[in-house]
Amino acid sequence: MQILITNDDGYTSKGLEALIKMAEGLGEITVVAPQHPQSAMSNAVSFGKLLRMKTVQNPHNSTRNDIRHHYCSGTPTDCIKIALNILFKERKPDFILSGINHGFNGSTAVVYSGTLAATREGVLNNIPSIAFSLNDHHPDADFSASIHYGRQILEKFIESPPNSYTYVNVNFPKGSIEEIKGIRFCRFGMGSWIKEIETRRDPYGHPYYWMVGEYKNLEPNAPDCDQNLLADNYVTVVPHKIDNTNYPELERMKNMWKDLTQ
Amino acid sequence: MQILITNDDGYTSKGLEALIKMAEGLGEITVVAPQHPQSAMSNAVSFGKLLRMKTVQNPHNSTRNDIRHHYCSGTPTDCIKIALNILFKERKPDFILSGINHGFNGSTAVVYSGTLAATREGVLNNIPSIAFSLNDHHPDADFSASIHYGRQILEKFIESPPNSYTYVNVNFPKGSIEEIKGIRFCRFGMGSWIKEIETRRDPYGHPYYWMVGEYKNLEPNAPDCDQNLLADNYVTVVPHKIDNTNYPELERMKNMWKDLTQ
Repeated sequence: MQILITNDDGYTSKGLEALIKMAEGLGEITVVAPQHPQSAMSNAVSFGKLLRMKTVQNPHNSTRNDIRHHYCSGTPTDCIKIALNILFKERKPDFILSGINHGFNGSTAVVYSGTLAATREGVLNNIPSIAFSLNDHHPDADFSASIHYGRQILEKFIESPPNSYTYVNVNFPKGSIEEIKGIRFCRFGMGSWIKEIETRRDPYGHPYYWMVGEYKNLEPNAPDCDQNLLADNYVTVVPHKIDNTNYPELERMKNMWKDLTQ
Repeated sequence: MQILITNDDGYTSKGLEALIKMAEGLGEITVVAPQHPQSAMSNAVSFGKLLRMKTVQNPHNSTRNDIRHHYCSGTPTDCIKIALNILFKERKPDFILSGINHGFNGSTAVVYSGTLAATREGVLNNIPSIAFSLNDHHPDADFSASIHYGRQILEKFIESPPNSYTYVNVNFPKGSIEEIKGIRFCRFGMGSWIKEIETRRDPYGHPYYWMVGEYKNLEPNAPDCDQNLLADNYVTVVPHKIDNTNYPELERMKNMWKDLTQ
């Protein structure tokens, strides 16, 4: 079995090392991860930019020598495209794994996350794909409980993968194996970011801006959505589909806007 | 009424000028568009990068002087975030319009498109948002039929906007008003890109890569999806929602993977 692994924090990150460990023994592993951090790059594709891919030797100083490591100079989506078109030209990988991200990727973070983008790219190529994220931004975060719970989910994922064009989003709470209450399958919860821009002035008096922001949970009392279950110390698992046509809205439009089609 | 306009081709593009023309008389117009082309940037956000926003004078040499034009140095998503946090700090715009994109944005192009990303960002801020694209990449494409049909759609959109967290994707075929058969409300159709990487060698013998690709229609015989209706010379309108939880798959997982939650 061939497993392709990527992330958005870059090829040297601790979370990537943890994901490789989680997948140990499940198949042959090929890593194509970004050369530089690519958080919040969503599904950006580097059209018009020269891309490089290089083989790298054991970036995590592991004792294992059976993993093919590469970095790609582009985004997580570029990593998947270049891997599939160059390294897996003859035969697609069986599964794509992305992460483990350093930081929360539930709720509407799914829209912006490079970690999730890689799984969207995977399922667009009809390859079962799963993303893992730990609710801890620290570069030296502790991934041991993530590996423990993630491995159980990964085995099920391989045994009975989701429908076509559906990617799976797993978020781990911080804390030890004992502190985590278990695994929950749930829906996506709505959230938004506020206070997203910080204004400064340069030495010449002109304004410039930094992206910042605070996460705002828009469904704080919903019991069945990812952000709240994660806050309650559960590992959350959400299946997302590519086709997000709003079918009820489509029917409403056909009716309300019907003179446009006459 | 306050209308915020952006795009992904950049603030000087002809498609942006066409969209301003389409919206004429419907409200006060503020433009915040990318300084440089940002196609295929999806919902990328420029964390960690210094951003600029500047007022620009009449970039399309229009005779009108009632439009506030700005460029932003970042992505389309950055444009919306900076506009809402700086220019519309006190009161949100009533509508967000994105485009008119030079090129097809139906099917799975929705995942990658910066034009569509801006509307996702809009509805995440609870502002009704609509994207327009013309199936013609040429920088000097003819937008006159797009303005004609787009105006009809835009008036309906303003009169009865879609549900919360739903963005609308409009694609125009090439051709004159007479050649276009009409407007159709439809679902998203599945497609994929193939042959996406072109390999070259630099003067030192090392490989490098360019993103290219051919679009592959995965539902060539489906009568009700955007790509096929567009090819048949209809203007297509698809409502997309932010929540893309795959609910049937969620139920399957809860059942098939149930020992994980016991």
